[in-house]
Amino acid sequence: MIRLEEIIKFIQDQVIQIQGPYKGIEIEGIAGLRNSDSRYIDWIHQNTKQPQEKAENSISKVIIANPGVNYSEKMKLNGKVLIQVKNPYLIIAKIGNEFFVRKEKPIIHPTAIIDQGAKIGKDVYIGAYSVIDACVIGDNSIIQENVIIRDCVKIGNNVLIKSGAIIGNPGFGFVKDEDGKLFKFPQIGEVIIENYVEIGSNTCIDRGAFSDTIIGSGSKINNLCHIAHNVGIGNQVIITALVNVSGSTIIGSNVWIGPNSTLKGHQIIGDNVLIGAGAVVLGDIPSNEVWVGNPARFLRKNE
Amino acid sequence: MIRLEEIIKFIQDQVIQIQGPYKGIEIEGIAGLRNSDSRYIDWIHQNTKQPQEKAENSISKVIIANPGVNYSEKMKLNGKVLIQVKNPYLIIAKIGNEFFVRKEKPIIHPTAIIDQGAKIGKDVYIGAYSVIDACVIGDNSIIQENVIIRDCVKIGNNVLIKSGAIIGNPGFGFVKDEDGKLFKFPQIGEVIIENYVEIGSNTCIDRGAFSDTIIGSGSKINNLCHIAHNVGIGNQVIITALVNVSGSTIIGSNVWIGPNSTLKGHQIIGDNVLIGAGAVVLGDIPSNEVWVGNPARFLRKNE
Amino acid sequence: MIRLEEIIKFIQDQVIQIQGPYKGIEIEGIAGLRNSDSRYIDWIHQNTKQPQEKAENSISKVIIANPGVNYSEKMKLNGKVLIQVKNPYLIIAKIGNEFFVRKEKPIIHPTAIIDQGAKIGKDVYIGAYSVIDACVIGDNSIIQENVIIRDCVKIGNNVLIKSGAIIGNPGFGFVKDEDGKLFKFPQIGEVIIENYVEIGSNTCIDRGAFSDTIIGSGSKINNLCHIAHNVGIGNQVIITALVNVSGSTIIGSNVWIGPNSTLKGHQIIGDNVLIGAGAVVLGDIPSNEVWVGNPARFLRKNE
Repeated sequence: MIRLEEIIKFIQDQVIQIQGPYKGIEIEGIAGLRNSDSRYIDWIHQNTKQPQEKAENSISKVIIANPGVNYSEKMKLNGKVLIQVKNPYLIIAKIGNEFFVRKEKPIIHPTAIIDQGAKIGKDVYIGAYSVIDACVIGDNSIIQENVIIRDCVKIGNNVLIKSGAIIGNPGFGFVKDEDGKLFKFPQIGEVIIENYVEIGSNTCIDRGAFSDTIIGSGSKINNLCHIAHNVGIGNQVIITALVNVSGSTIIGSNVWIGPNSTLKGHQIIGDNVLIGAGAVVLGDIPSNEVWVGNPARFLRKNE
Repeated sequence: MIRLEEIIKFIQDQVIQIQGPYKGIEIEGIAGLRNSDSRYIDWIHQNTKQPQEKAENSISKVIIANPGVNYSEKMKLNGKVLIQVKNPYLIIAKIGNEFFVRKEKPIIHPTAIIDQGAKIGKDVYIGAYSVIDACVIGDNSIIQENVIIRDCVKIGNNVLIKSGAIIGNPGFGFVKDEDGKLFKFPQIGEVIIENYVEIGSNTCIDRGAFSDTIIGSGSKINNLCHIAHNVGIGNQVIITALVNVSGSTIIGSNVWIGPNSTLKGHQIIGDNVLIGAGAVVLGDIPSNEVWVGNPARFLRKNE
Repeated sequence: MIRLEEIIKFIQDQVIQIQGPYKGIEIEGIAGLRNSDSRYIDWIHQNTKQPQEKAENSISKVIIANPGVNYSEKMKLNGKVLIQVKNPYLIIAKIGNEFFVRKEKPIIHPTAIIDQGAKIGKDVYIGAYSVIDACVIGDNSIIQENVIIRDCVKIGNNVLIKSGAIIGNPGFGFVKDEDGKLFKFPQIGEVIIENYVEIGSNTCIDRGAFSDTIIGSGSKINNLCHIAHNVGIGNQVIITALVNVSGSTIIGSNVWIGPNSTLKGHQIIGDNVLIGAGAVVLGDIPSNEVWVGNPARFLRKNE
């Protein structure tokens, strides 16, 4: 249980107005689709339709909403508390992370196998049964359990790598030899993962062939993705689950890539691009466009 | 080698008729596409075309078929045994599981790391190098090797979780902060896995954001699937390999979802729905319908 | 640093002509998209457009190209070395593997759990935290970290199985019982992996139901693929990332399957077939054809 006054203190710079009797209230958690209770703090997303109606119908004692929601007579009668902020979605995220998400202590589990040549920063968490070759890991990064990180990998600060991820394995490249047999193309590049990146569970990021594979600052990759050799990804890119990015494709910044989509190799994707779920991208995409379908086609400008 | 008389005893309630000299026969295994031998028991699926011809041509000594297959003169001359049952497909499955599938003994491998707070039921198998946080696991459940289960997970009885599965990691949700940077949305819900569920190898099931992620009783999920935060799946649902179900989507019961298909978030899928391989589902689907394609479209009623 | 003369000695049978002062040069590495330096050996792919221009503009001291590239006055003035070979792509691959790829020593990590009944060949590498049941593994094979191999698996020589792969788990098959409940179909076949096969990270290959799952000699499967029960794959097949091959489908030799594509069960794919990225293959494909799309359609002959 968290005291509401403590929460209000934490968000006080963002609070526009508080209405109703908020003193002495204790908060059990945050209201969701299928759990709620008067002791859960509720919140009305700024883009919700009929926000006033939703706020009125909430069974929570405390509601966070933007100034478009009024403190009605009904709320007053029921002793509700309405906290008005500009961006309820961001504020509830901040409250959740501060008060309700458990922080992992930065420990290195004794079963993690860490090469003597590895350079591990301050306050790093490394989970059980992870195998860390002679790579570089920056400060405050979290490597969960059963992760493999090869010695060709350089990881920045505040990076999260989830369980089962495999970073820096040799890429998938073959050349036919004189007899028509598949001969392995050498894979000796690096993987560079910049600050504030998140890599999903069981996602695989291969090392470059001769160049590097790069994941730019603040980019987030979901579970079960394949990022091939020599791929370059910009900053603040969101790659959802089960996405394939084939070799040597370059992706700009602020791009969103839908689940189960696939990007052909050696293409260039601009900045601020949206790629739809299940899209099969076979060519370059200029900046500020939305592409969808199989094969992927221009749908509209992304403005 | 298993005595045929023992097998017949096991299925005797379902046997309509046995023809031919079955005493003293020993069975080596069950006939398949690419292995066969007179000592392998063969079976004719009730939906097979030309079942009589297939039964006549089988090199097996013992054949299970439905009553549409007759004990012919040729079978008699060759000393074959024909066992007639209503549903040969189900009967051979039962025989296979009873006599030819090795049962894992319910042991907990010494290298499994199990939190002191975990509540583990009776006769549970936990494989090597699995990491079990303070979760709940019901009776007779099997957790294979290299599995990760977080403390927000509640698993029922007779559940099978295959190797490399990762259950209960925080979901993939972000909100832009004041500077346009991606800020992690808190993920503090649970994962509820009901009785008789199967979770495939390397499949990832994320915990809910504020609500729970739920996999209903008897549902089966194949390898390499991503089930996002807050997803609700009904009973007896089959999800094949490499499927993505995005956040907060609700799926009814008796649904079949084809491989490599993807379901957008916040949709509602009814009961008794079929979703084709590679389908990209961008909206709700009513009960009793078949949808296919990219984007997925109504194909026909599912009757 | 590698002496160029040593490299030339290694490829001397393939060298057509060497021009320029090559004695005494030392090589740091191989030039790539985003790394280069005069000490990196550069190479011009035989299919490159404007090869002469690319060779002229290379900042490397040493360039490998086919005889279509001439040793120009400019190269001469700059003291460049031009090595002419028929197939620069193959030659650079051979040089890279010989001089710049680190070879794993064939050790078995003490944390690998290996069943007493396993038959392990000569010079096999088995990585940390892998679980090897009573299977067969041929000579010179590499099993990376966190791999699971069941006792129904037979692996040939010179096979590479990357981290997180799960080979031989029971397949995904169910039959409805008398009450309409999903009843597990027995999965008691084997997995046969022939010589020179590569299996990607986190890829899952299920054992057959009654027959075997077979991966033919020299075939390469990338990361995060699902190969279902009873699938048969020919020789020298390339399966890229995130591909699903459903149960009992048979694939010929010299086939290429694009990423995120899916093949329905019980189909037959001929030899020398190309299947496009994201293709949804719902039927048989004859030899020497290219198929693409959802659903996949004939595009052209593959000649």
